[in-house]
Amino acid sequence: MPIDFAATKALFHLPDGVIYLDGNSLGPMVKTAPARVEKAVSAEWGELLIRGWNLAGWMAQPRTLGDKVGRLIGAERGTVVLGDTLSIKVYQAVASALDMNPRRKVILSDSGNFPSDLYMAEGLCRTLGGQYRLRTVAPEEAMSAIDDTVAVVMLTEVDYRTGRRHHMADITARAHEMGALAVWDLAHSAGAIPVDLAAAKADFAVGCTYKYLNSGPGGPAFIYVAPRHSEVARPALSGWLGHEAPFAFDLTYRPGQGIDRMRVGTPAVFQMAALEAALEVWEGVDLHDVHRQSLRLQDQFIKGVESRAPMRQLATPRSHLMRGSQVSFRHPEGYAIMQALIAEGVIGDFRAPDILRFGFTPLYIDEDDVARAVNVLAKIMDYGSWDRPEFKLRAAVT
Amino acid sequence: MPIDFAATKALFHLPDGVIYLDGNSLGPMVKTAPARVEKAVSAEWGELLIRGWNLAGWMAQPRTLGDKVGRLIGAERGTVVLGDTLSIKVYQAVASALDMNPRRKVILSDSGNFPSDLYMAEGLCRTLGGQYRLRTVAPEEAMSAIDDTVAVVMLTEVDYRTGRRHHMADITARAHEMGALAVWDLAHSAGAIPVDLAAAKADFAVGCTYKYLNSGPGGPAFIYVAPRHSEVARPALSGWLGHEAPFAFDLTYRPGQGIDRMRVGTPAVFQMAALEAALEVWEGVDLHDVHRQSLRLQDQFIKGVESRAPMRQLATPRSHLMRGSQVSFRHPEGYAIMQALIAEGVIGDFRAPDILRFGFTPLYIDEDDVARAVNVLAKIMDYGSWDRPEFKLRAAVT
Repeated sequence: MPIDFAATKALFHLPDGVIYLDGNSLGPMVKTAPARVEKAVSAEWGELLIRGWNLAGWMAQPRTLGDKVGRLIGAERGTVVLGDTLSIKVYQAVASALDMNPRRKVILSDSGNFPSDLYMAEGLCRTLGGQYRLRTVAPEEAMSAIDDTVAVVMLTEVDYRTGRRHHMADITARAHEMGALAVWDLAHSAGAIPVDLAAAKADFAVGCTYKYLNSGPGGPAFIYVAPRHSEVARPALSGWLGHEAPFAFDLTYRPGQGIDRMRVGTPAVFQMAALEAALEVWEGVDLHDVHRQSLRLQDQFIKGVESRAPMRQLATPRSHLMRGSQVSFRHPEGYAIMQALIAEGVIGDFRAPDILRFGFTPLYIDEDDVARAVNVLAKIMDYGSWDRPEFKLRAAVT
Repeated sequence: MPIDFAATKALFHLPDGVIYLDGNSLGPMVKTAPARVEKAVSAEWGELLIRGWNLAGWMAQPRTLGDKVGRLIGAERGTVVLGDTLSIKVYQAVASALDMNPRRKVILSDSGNFPSDLYMAEGLCRTLGGQYRLRTVAPEEAMSAIDDTVAVVMLTEVDYRTGRRHHMADITARAHEMGALAVWDLAHSAGAIPVDLAAAKADFAVGCTYKYLNSGPGGPAFIYVAPRHSEVARPALSGWLGHEAPFAFDLTYRPGQGIDRMRVGTPAVFQMAALEAALEVWEGVDLHDVHRQSLRLQDQFIKGVESRAPMRQLATPRSHLMRGSQVSFRHPEGYAIMQALIAEGVIGDFRAPDILRFGFTPLYIDEDDVARAVNVLAKIMDYGSWDRPEFKLRAAVT
């Protein structure tokens, strides 16, 4: 049954007068989120107090929600757990993978990876000592750069700036052929495109929930460990909730069963509540349908912009097979143009040095929204109305 | 001006019929928390969307709230930042400290430290490689065990089970004398007892906010770095928000200024909102007054229990100088006794193998509460009403 996108759109709260093309950075709120969070605060924390850990299911939630996220990324049951931030989960995944491939010392990544992934890998190499190093190549060289020195290939499937998509199954196969493990960051994949971790034979995967999964600012991250590794992987961040028996309070660490060992500290209960509400939108939704509709919206936008509001260059590949859920254009005045757009209620974002990003999320964005966004951008470019001092002042966060 | 404890009590929501002696595990809700969190969800996320990072101050909050927490622990301005969980902050602090003392390979801790701290240190040693090790001694030997092999002394100031308090300034002085650095876990100190990190010359400190600071389940942790180390310390977990220029999206990591480098990933905005509300209770409150009143309540409880409901043994030191804000008793049937108490509305908690813990938090617990708690415990012990099968069934979380 095809998705009724008008019905899913009605599940989201979108501010009046806003066309939100930035769900690739922070997804909007589902209408049930405020009441769900309020319940976690007042009815659970307020009334149950410490008993909430059992009675309200707070302790189990990172696993139960993990299975719901798992369904959206082709993960086997019981292989995904929520918690911490994406940077922390990257560290755990890469550290575990390096530990499983001890003769090799190179982490291979690409320049399209989100910088925090690179920074965390750098910090891990430094902690592990001088022999380890991070090698960063251009995205189009990622596949060919996998050689027999590489311990771990660490890539983000969809480039945060250009929207360029790697072929996960092919790169993973190549990594395995060369004796390396593959860690995939699904920040721009989960909830955006069909992902099949099991079929791709990914070793580890990580991602965040506040983009396409709409869990709200600072929502928990997730980590996936392939079932074949789950009793072998050793989390470098070995916290008490990853212990085999957290409430025995033993003095020495024993890793928990399977994915549980990737838990670290106390879960953020209010953020989990918002995620729980947001995940209900996905029940029965097939990511193939979502991505197909996203590509339609993207094509509509690209065509409109190229004919009516030309930018310097389309940064996103034209091939549907190499696209995620966003479209990026380059323009030397990209920052000011984006500020002018936002002032008109069309929210996308800017990434240095010259990228304008637009996310196409069919659960709450439709053809009318895209047509209006094109109109607004065309007007701004026609009148040069981006060329004002107030649009050129850069804020701390953009 | 002395604290008006009746007035502070009125700021908290406590469920009907409950005497809450478990603020040392999870503090109760301040009455303003639900509206504050609701604002972060509906008015900020819902309406501002991505613009909330600037317009609602989400990005700055870990630092602004850090200064508020800092005031309660004697930290210099600009030396405390919030984020992640306590386990993650322990890892960062210990890794930074080891990095600053590279010739030595021993982390010294004690068996009264919270197990997650020990587990994180174990994981760090394993990651750093074979030369590093964690040495764990009895709490009363912690001071004398500091020798010239020790790189880092890692202790929790107040023992989570017994409530026994270390002398932070003396142990830190001894550590420095022997060429070691001191990392203090303030989980059971912050908001419970006067702490003066600057005067004690602590090198690093970490803590959580969901106990005595009442931020709610999964509230953010904090980390302190002494100003003399702030430009030297290198966080092993080097995430993008700890970068000198997070929004430049450089490919290589450069640590941020001072305490900012200890930030990792995106802050949990809803949890921060609850913390913000909770911290307002502390404005103008002096921890000396709070602790003095806590000791009065503790003494009242100890006297009541010893005369009317004898346990096997008081686990907490009798000396006021060696106490935090909790009182613990040992009893072989401690688990069942605690379940019977909870069934009667007196909430404390149990820690294996035989510890009953009771927290005395004068901001919302008064003499009447203590008298009633003693009465309930005396009744349970008199009638042996803990000796029922339903009280002996252990839940997953206790």
